[in-house]
Amino acid sequence: MSLELLTLNNPVFKSFTFWAGVLVVKMLAMSLLTAIQRFKTKTFANPEDLMSPKLKVKFDDPNVERVRRAHRNDLENILPFFAIGLLYTLTNPSAFLAINLFRAVGISRIVHTLVYAVVVVPQPARALSFFVALISTAYMAFQVIAAAAF
Amino acid sequence: MSLELLTLNNPVFKSFTFWAGVLVVKMLAMSLLTAIQRFKTKTFANPEDLMSPKLKVKFDDPNVERVRRAHRNDLENILPFFAIGLLYTLTNPSAFLAINLFRAVGISRIVHTLVYAVVVVPQPARALSFFVALISTAYMAFQVIAAAAF
Amino acid sequence: MSLELLTLNNPVFKSFTFWAGVLVVKMLAMSLLTAIQRFKTKTFANPEDLMSPKLKVKFDDPNVERVRRAHRNDLENILPFFAIGLLYTLTNPSAFLAINLFRAVGISRIVHTLVYAVVVVPQPARALSFFVALISTAYMAFQVIAAAAF
Repeated sequence: MSLELLTLNNPVFKSFTFWAGVLVVKMLAMSLLTAIQRFKTKTFANPEDLMSPKLKVKFDDPNVERVRRAHRNDLENILPFFAIGLLYTLTNPSAFLAINLFRAVGISRIVHTLVYAVVVVPQPARALSFFVALISTAYMAFQVIAAAAF
Repeated sequence: MSLELLTLNNPVFKSFTFWAGVLVVKMLAMSLLTAIQRFKTKTFANPEDLMSPKLKVKFDDPNVERVRRAHRNDLENILPFFAIGLLYTLTNPSAFLAINLFRAVGISRIVHTLVYAVVVVPQPARALSFFVALISTAYMAFQVIAAAAF
Repeated sequence: MSLELLTLNNPVFKSFTFWAGVLVVKMLAMSLLTAIQRFKTKTFANPEDLMSPKLKVKFDDPNVERVRRAHRNDLENILPFFAIGLLYTLTNPSAFLAINLFRAVGISRIVHTLVYAVVVVPQPARALSFFVALISTAYMAFQVIAAAAF
């Protein structure tokens, strides 16, 4: 049973694996996006990072802080999804539902980054993308709790 | 073997799954708690979030920052537990011990949030709940290292 | 198949389990390192943490903030590794390559902490250790995506 569930022959696991991989790449890209903003605005948080003796450490550049907020939002939402997506897969859910939930999380978290940290789009773009992922993740968590509680 | 270990027939995995689900829901609820505090205190971090042209971005509201510190503490402690709890389950530990460790982490992290971000309780309430979860997670990590090292 | 892959008989899983355990312990130690710096510099973020009525909450001590930046960097890089390392193990990779990737991540993240938060070493020490782990994790993520996409 779990033998089947955690192989790429299981379309649910295959979909989870795909989106988890995509979201890990997306998260790692946030570090590069932060670095780009740091060099563009010469905003460095550590004395040993200063490129010139004229620079001072700086913590309040709005462009850097925006990317860092988007990144932190990823930590808060994508990382719990990695845990619950795997456990949800192990409850052997309907493939149709599970695959679309993973897609919803994957796509909405990419959109969240784009409208938050790449091209700022007025609300409710960010709120909507945030809630699609949050509700999908919460649904999986409740399914996991229900499967384990009874 | 792992076939057995990652199914709900294994009481250790069942307990891990239950508490992981509960803690994911708890963590997602922190975002809502932050949002409630942001609206209550009109503290928004992004220009596009401001509800009125009279408002300015604000980063130092103590009620918002308190919830954010509690949330970050979750990231630092609950997310590593998700990884190590699964690996610990795969070492086939004593069910009695493992289930009580998962319970200890789950309950103490809920208490941590309550005394930190819901109703502020004087120390050592938060320190105690913090250390119960930390020590339980560290114990599992050392067991996992020992199982893998020899 | 997955039966074999998630047991300690699989040298890839054994190596992943070992390094995941080590990195969880390392991450939990960051909390203690932060606490040490907080007490040393009397920098507390919550009114209920103040040891004396003469103290005030403080958020800008450079020694505390340095450890907190190192800890946050762990959240951003080590936690995604936990997810992708497990999924990569389930793609049944070459043992030689996988074990060395896990070692690279484990060792470079320990070095990252040492040169960032224990003894400050001039750049590029931190940048190099950061990129070794980032590139290794990204490589695993692309392998996982490739395995799941086709």
